[in-house]
Amino acid sequence: MTDLKSKVEALTPEAILAAYQLVQPFVHSTPLLTNTTLNKLASTPQTPESLIGTPYEGQPPAKPTFRFFFKCENYQRIGAFKARGAFHALLRLILERGESEVKKRGVITHSSGNHAQALALAAATLNIPAYIVMPSISTPSKIAGTRSHGAQVIFSGSTSTEREAVVAEIQAKTDAILVPPYDDFNVICGQGTTALDMEKQYRALVKESPHLSRHSADVCRAAPALDAVITPVGGGGLNAGVATFFSDKKTRVFGAEPSFEGADDCRRGLLAGERIAAVKTLTIADGLRTPVGVLNWEVISDPNKVAGVFSVTEEQIKAAMRLVLERMKVVVEPSAVVGLAVCLFNEEFRRMVEKEAPQGWDMGVVFSGGNTTVEAIGKLFS
Amino acid sequence: MTDLKSKVEALTPEAILAAYQLVQPFVHSTPLLTNTTLNKLASTPQTPESLIGTPYEGQPPAKPTFRFFFKCENYQRIGAFKARGAFHALLRLILERGESEVKKRGVITHSSGNHAQALALAAATLNIPAYIVMPSISTPSKIAGTRSHGAQVIFSGSTSTEREAVVAEIQAKTDAILVPPYDDFNVICGQGTTALDMEKQYRALVKESPHLSRHSADVCRAAPALDAVITPVGGGGLNAGVATFFSDKKTRVFGAEPSFEGADDCRRGLLAGERIAAVKTLTIADGLRTPVGVLNWEVISDPNKVAGVFSVTEEQIKAAMRLVLERMKVVVEPSAVVGLAVCLFNEEFRRMVEKEAPQGWDMGVVFSGGNTTVEAIGKLFS
Repeated sequence: MTDLKSKVEALTPEAILAAYQLVQPFVHSTPLLTNTTLNKLASTPQTPESLIGTPYEGQPPAKPTFRFFFKCENYQRIGAFKARGAFHALLRLILERGESEVKKRGVITHSSGNHAQALALAAATLNIPAYIVMPSISTPSKIAGTRSHGAQVIFSGSTSTEREAVVAEIQAKTDAILVPPYDDFNVICGQGTTALDMEKQYRALVKESPHLSRHSADVCRAAPALDAVITPVGGGGLNAGVATFFSDKKTRVFGAEPSFEGADDCRRGLLAGERIAAVKTLTIADGLRTPVGVLNWEVISDPNKVAGVFSVTEEQIKAAMRLVLERMKVVVEPSAVVGLAVCLFNEEFRRMVEKEAPQGWDMGVVFSGGNTTVEAIGKLFS
Repeated sequence: MTDLKSKVEALTPEAILAAYQLVQPFVHSTPLLTNTTLNKLASTPQTPESLIGTPYEGQPPAKPTFRFFFKCENYQRIGAFKARGAFHALLRLILERGESEVKKRGVITHSSGNHAQALALAAATLNIPAYIVMPSISTPSKIAGTRSHGAQVIFSGSTSTEREAVVAEIQAKTDAILVPPYDDFNVICGQGTTALDMEKQYRALVKESPHLSRHSADVCRAAPALDAVITPVGGGGLNAGVATFFSDKKTRVFGAEPSFEGADDCRRGLLAGERIAAVKTLTIADGLRTPVGVLNWEVISDPNKVAGVFSVTEEQIKAAMRLVLERMKVVVEPSAVVGLAVCLFNEEFRRMVEKEAPQGWDMGVVFSGGNTTVEAIGKLFS
């Protein structure tokens, strides 16, 4: 517990800045996009019919005003923010343990998703052997993607017990160092660089084009703050990192989760006052099927760091994804749009925004990744 | 015929520059994107198997080198380059006939596609009444899109005779001025502004990042030229406009067409030495189902302006579209990627590039539009 406590205390904006300086040469500064159509849609009240069956049935729909700033980590290397955490974890390992030790031992993780490809890319770039344990039922494109970066893929069963057994076996043979997908100090700091990058770009953008902001041109010329930022919450690495960066600033941070089959473990945990350690869901937002990590929970459950976590239905995620693909012409995976879906469809959130900010919010929305296929898109909307 | 000849002579780079100055406040300067993965894929020889059944069967596959610069007109207003031509046509009408006459008479066109929405938007912006004749079988989203800009939609049958009858009827009533979708001097000049914009951005980009270009850093600091640009050819407005802009420059211009059911009317016309006036095809590239226009043909069939037109199969269009969606994470419609498909899969084109440029080409590729739906994507790849 003291170890956990010291890690939580070390999660500071300065730690994110240090991570940023380290990873900057290896990751993209992804675009920060605005979109008039989505601003209009989100700033239009929902229909009374869409509130039927919710606690807001029969009440006048909220009238919030949003000016969105979309941080497009779908354009990050390997197509997701995970590249930030993976590069940061490996660069720190090298600084802390020395290049020769890390290269000799190699690194290992278990993941069937974006973290697998991110670690494989980072390891290949830094000439470190990488072992990636993937369930044998993983989609062939993800296996091929991971292998294409030169990582050694080892198959396992799909339960976490089966996966961990294979990891232990490889570690016994190779002494490879484990790099967890989210429950890790250095991974959280790496993901948090998304926030620093976003704030920089926001300031540059509204300085140039003050009409995109709710702030006056004078404020835009100085150092304006985003009113809020919302990110998806799966294991919580991205959300905890972003919340850490903004913890000494005016910008409030929110989390977004799918509600399907209890995938909103973080939101439910906050209500219960305790982290929910296990989740079993097949939400279409497949990057968000995991429970929040232990260290991540310490950050996200701190009301001074995260102002709230909201959830959305599968249909709302699909509707948001359709808007991003058809109107913005940007390819995102379902997990990426849960934050936007909250802004568009979560009436509790929308009421809060209306009440707290008659002039509306400059709202940062993190699109976490874009790794999907045309077949998967077809299946979702068939 | 003298009228045609004088129009052809007036299609000069200066005319495109004048159009650019006029439309610039009304259209987006869309992004010019690069992509390492697509460069690598296009610069890798095709497999010998993929050449089976073609004239190149049994021969060693070509080894061209491409450095792509994608001009993303899918991010243009209304989601396609057509906004350029529509705004230019209306702005010229106002200059030539006076604002009060144009506002009194209004404008009319027949289109079921991007031109309908483009004209509706331009007319609404300039406060001109617009009548759009659409086949009654048009998809509801396109009808709604056209109406959402305030245009009056009038339905017709789907043959060109039926459509033209309805146009004549409305014109008799309203005296509305016809703005054709492509076979029109001012429309061609408007579409040609894509090229001017692209060249400007290319120069700025490689000045900043010379490694993206085949040219030396010294050349990049001066005024480097794209080696070639390829655009889709449907009615030929975009291709003729782009070719006009580059007609006094080093950059060569190519056209791309689907081969399905004779949609490659321009390519076949060039072989036969005569414009093919009618086409009946249901290629998935639905923006390219029309024959090349008369004025457009005069430009495109001039070897000093267009260096060649190449065609690709439906499967090649789908493969290119998949790469753009999955690797670039950019939403494009099938018509938009025929140029990229030529670079990736047309062995005749690839041989030419290899032969003429051992150091490869800085290749501009125009993505013409992105108006598709998640359902349409699903259907294409199901």
